[in-house]
Amino acid sequence: MIMMKHLAQKLAELLGPIGWLSGADAAGYSRDWLNRYGEPPLGVARPTSTAEVAAVVAACHDAGVPLTPQGGNTGLCGAAMLGKPGGVILSLSRMTKIGRPDRAAENIEVEAGVVLAALHEALNAHGLIFPLHLGAEGSAQIGGLIGTNAGGNHALRYGMMQDLILGLEVVLPDGRVWNGLRAVQKDNSGYQLRRLFCGAEGTLGVVTRAVLKLYPAPRNRATALLTIPDVSSLLAFGKRLRADACEFISGMEFFCDFGLDMALRHVHGLSYPLQERAPWYLLVEMTAGSALVPLEQILEAALADGLESGEVLDGVVAVNDTQRATLWRLREEQPEGQRLEGTQLKHDVSVPPGRLAEFIEQASVLCGRVLPGVRVNPFGHLGDGNTHFNLTPPLGQSGFGELASEFAQRIGALAGSLGGSFAAEHGLGRSKVSLADALRSPEERSLMAAIKQAIDPGNLMNPGAVLHQ
Amino acid sequence: MIMMKHLAQKLAELLGPIGWLSGADAAGYSRDWLNRYGEPPLGVARPTSTAEVAAVVAACHDAGVPLTPQGGNTGLCGAAMLGKPGGVILSLSRMTKIGRPDRAAENIEVEAGVVLAALHEALNAHGLIFPLHLGAEGSAQIGGLIGTNAGGNHALRYGMMQDLILGLEVVLPDGRVWNGLRAVQKDNSGYQLRRLFCGAEGTLGVVTRAVLKLYPAPRNRATALLTIPDVSSLLAFGKRLRADACEFISGMEFFCDFGLDMALRHVHGLSYPLQERAPWYLLVEMTAGSALVPLEQILEAALADGLESGEVLDGVVAVNDTQRATLWRLREEQPEGQRLEGTQLKHDVSVPPGRLAEFIEQASVLCGRVLPGVRVNPFGHLGDGNTHFNLTPPLGQSGFGELASEFAQRIGALAGSLGGSFAAEHGLGRSKVSLADALRSPEERSLMAAIKQAIDPGNLMNPGAVLHQ
Repeated sequence: MIMMKHLAQKLAELLGPIGWLSGADAAGYSRDWLNRYGEPPLGVARPTSTAEVAAVVAACHDAGVPLTPQGGNTGLCGAAMLGKPGGVILSLSRMTKIGRPDRAAENIEVEAGVVLAALHEALNAHGLIFPLHLGAEGSAQIGGLIGTNAGGNHALRYGMMQDLILGLEVVLPDGRVWNGLRAVQKDNSGYQLRRLFCGAEGTLGVVTRAVLKLYPAPRNRATALLTIPDVSSLLAFGKRLRADACEFISGMEFFCDFGLDMALRHVHGLSYPLQERAPWYLLVEMTAGSALVPLEQILEAALADGLESGEVLDGVVAVNDTQRATLWRLREEQPEGQRLEGTQLKHDVSVPPGRLAEFIEQASVLCGRVLPGVRVNPFGHLGDGNTHFNLTPPLGQSGFGELASEFAQRIGALAGSLGGSFAAEHGLGRSKVSLADALRSPEERSLMAAIKQAIDPGNLMNPGAVLHQ
Repeated sequence: MIMMKHLAQKLAELLGPIGWLSGADAAGYSRDWLNRYGEPPLGVARPTSTAEVAAVVAACHDAGVPLTPQGGNTGLCGAAMLGKPGGVILSLSRMTKIGRPDRAAENIEVEAGVVLAALHEALNAHGLIFPLHLGAEGSAQIGGLIGTNAGGNHALRYGMMQDLILGLEVVLPDGRVWNGLRAVQKDNSGYQLRRLFCGAEGTLGVVTRAVLKLYPAPRNRATALLTIPDVSSLLAFGKRLRADACEFISGMEFFCDFGLDMALRHVHGLSYPLQERAPWYLLVEMTAGSALVPLEQILEAALADGLESGEVLDGVVAVNDTQRATLWRLREEQPEGQRLEGTQLKHDVSVPPGRLAEFIEQASVLCGRVLPGVRVNPFGHLGDGNTHFNLTPPLGQSGFGELASEFAQRIGALAGSLGGSFAAEHGLGRSKVSLADALRSPEERSLMAAIKQAIDPGNLMNPGAVLHQ
């Protein structure tokens, strides 16, 4: 206790009253946004530089006090929360510098606290894009996106966060700083540390800065919403699109009529642009750098083939950015619609896209066996097989009783048996550590434990996330 | 000695006479193809299955005998060779099974000994490609390409080997098997082990199988060779191409007139298709999935702009596959031309593409100071800044005296100071370990050493590669 009081004093002196929050001031940082995880911290450190981060980490290390890095706090698995009371939360939210983009090399250096949407905006004037997009982009921070190896809607084309990192700077668990801020794709100078820290959910160090890969801004865009009779047709049409328009597809997002129904009922300002509803919907977006590419013609040709083959029932092509935004909102408000419907269980799995029909059919059957009448809402990213297989209780019921972990385990095991993963893009955090222990091999877990032990022998860096404490 | 004799007997029994080679039979495996690295082995193990690999690794582990995995043996840094006599070489060359490609999911499972060109060929009938291409593709094996995180000519568009791996199977240093053969891009279930093993140069385990990402085969292709007055024009034209044809560029390869001269003088069957020679050459290749894309029109429009601005002096567009192959050979025979010229020093560096002009100018000046009259031959991948900055002695001299490490260190330090890397795509192997120690921070080297120690505490898995023994 004396040790901790001493640490709090030390951090308060180091960071000043704006940089060190405790008591009631810390409340906004200590629970996750869904209010499911988090324990009261000793305090919240809000450093403004790598040197300050290093000093905070070193002080915690010396005092033997655990530390959890926190970004925008929009994760879904509790990785940015304390697992036990009394640790320090290290918020990166005051490290928001955005460097000047390097137009020729197509990269940019940013601090970890930069909000994704702010980066998008900063690039507008430069003819460049950072191609990661996801629902939480208005709050998610670069450091958190790196920590969780975020995926999102365009991963099919541009990859996940780990594919978009050229260089990293990381404060290690003992307070030393690893400067890996190289600005090149090709860097085979030993182990791929930049890839290891990405997705480690803050358990191996604190990401403070990154050099990110950029792409030329597209000059040409086509977006359509299609109605689809069944999952096999979704897949068949997806395959057709990939063959005809491989380079241009930056999004192939699917959702189902139950999901659309919830979104339309609960979320204000949505409108559905087609006459008839259908079992499934596919949102397609294509972009191209060259104005010479006949994007709409390519999209319409694929659509015509899809209509003729019966894979597609109907469709609407956006003619301007307002219409485009209207179509995207139908997809993006899927989580919000279901949240407003009431209690839910979220499952974030991936399967090889060719096995998506099998997965959705079998997962629906098994969920119905576990809890008859349960309502399933699969939606996600057709191109990479990442499915958010979320559940709402049977009509007239408000909860799932004690069935949450049975659902998670059975759905996750099914995804694994089809060659996929029980944890696709949200990470393990604290919520899926037991699931990982149950579903993955002892070899895999012991490899991870060995790496953790090697880099953080005191187990002070976000203990309890990814691996049991 | 008794232990080793016992191990040799055990492996001979396990693998049979074709699977265990020793004495003169092992000679073909014990030196690298440039005959610069390698010590005599106890023997060469040539297992045919993961179970056999695991048995070999476990036997070596129990006997305390070091083991080096070997693929096609076309690496340039000695990673697939023994650093000390008496270890076991584990050749994957008999593990050559190629699975059936999954057309819908765009992936394929292969064994580690599959030769890259054989994989390309096997995919021909399926309308899919594996987009990694490099000079050694006729001999390089998938396992070695994973071990070294190979880059190659199309990394700009499709990424490096680590970006093309979905799942991996690895025999760990104690003989246990990690089955990470998932077939999905999105798998955030803990640390990104697949990315860590890729590029570890066989020091953390033996890759036995992989699930690789495929792409739809392009239906449309345009290739051109351009002459360029200077490096700034190379960069300016590269930028123009990226903006106009971002999605389609699958290769932007540059070389210089000295390199072309050596290739034309020494390599049979090359022909130069333009009337005038020039200081620099750029080979551009574009591909598209859709036949509706006016690729040649896009290329010719960019070319016309380049000619008008003076960035381009002249150019020829290939009209058929034979011409395309002729143009590519001029680029691909750059290393062979210089090899046949005599002694050389190879440097494989990367710099942010925008700084390539600075790098080439400054590196040329510093090399001239180290050895007046030294002839520099920079060539490589414009899009990712990966430059093979290779040296030939001054006219009339046959060697570099004792200057090799001074060149390597000064060129590598320059690349690092510009935000790049002294080791871009060939890896560290045994040849660049001291260079890494000299050029990289103690934090970086200690992180790598900690990971190595955690996964291979006995230091039996390819000791001396990546890290000093």
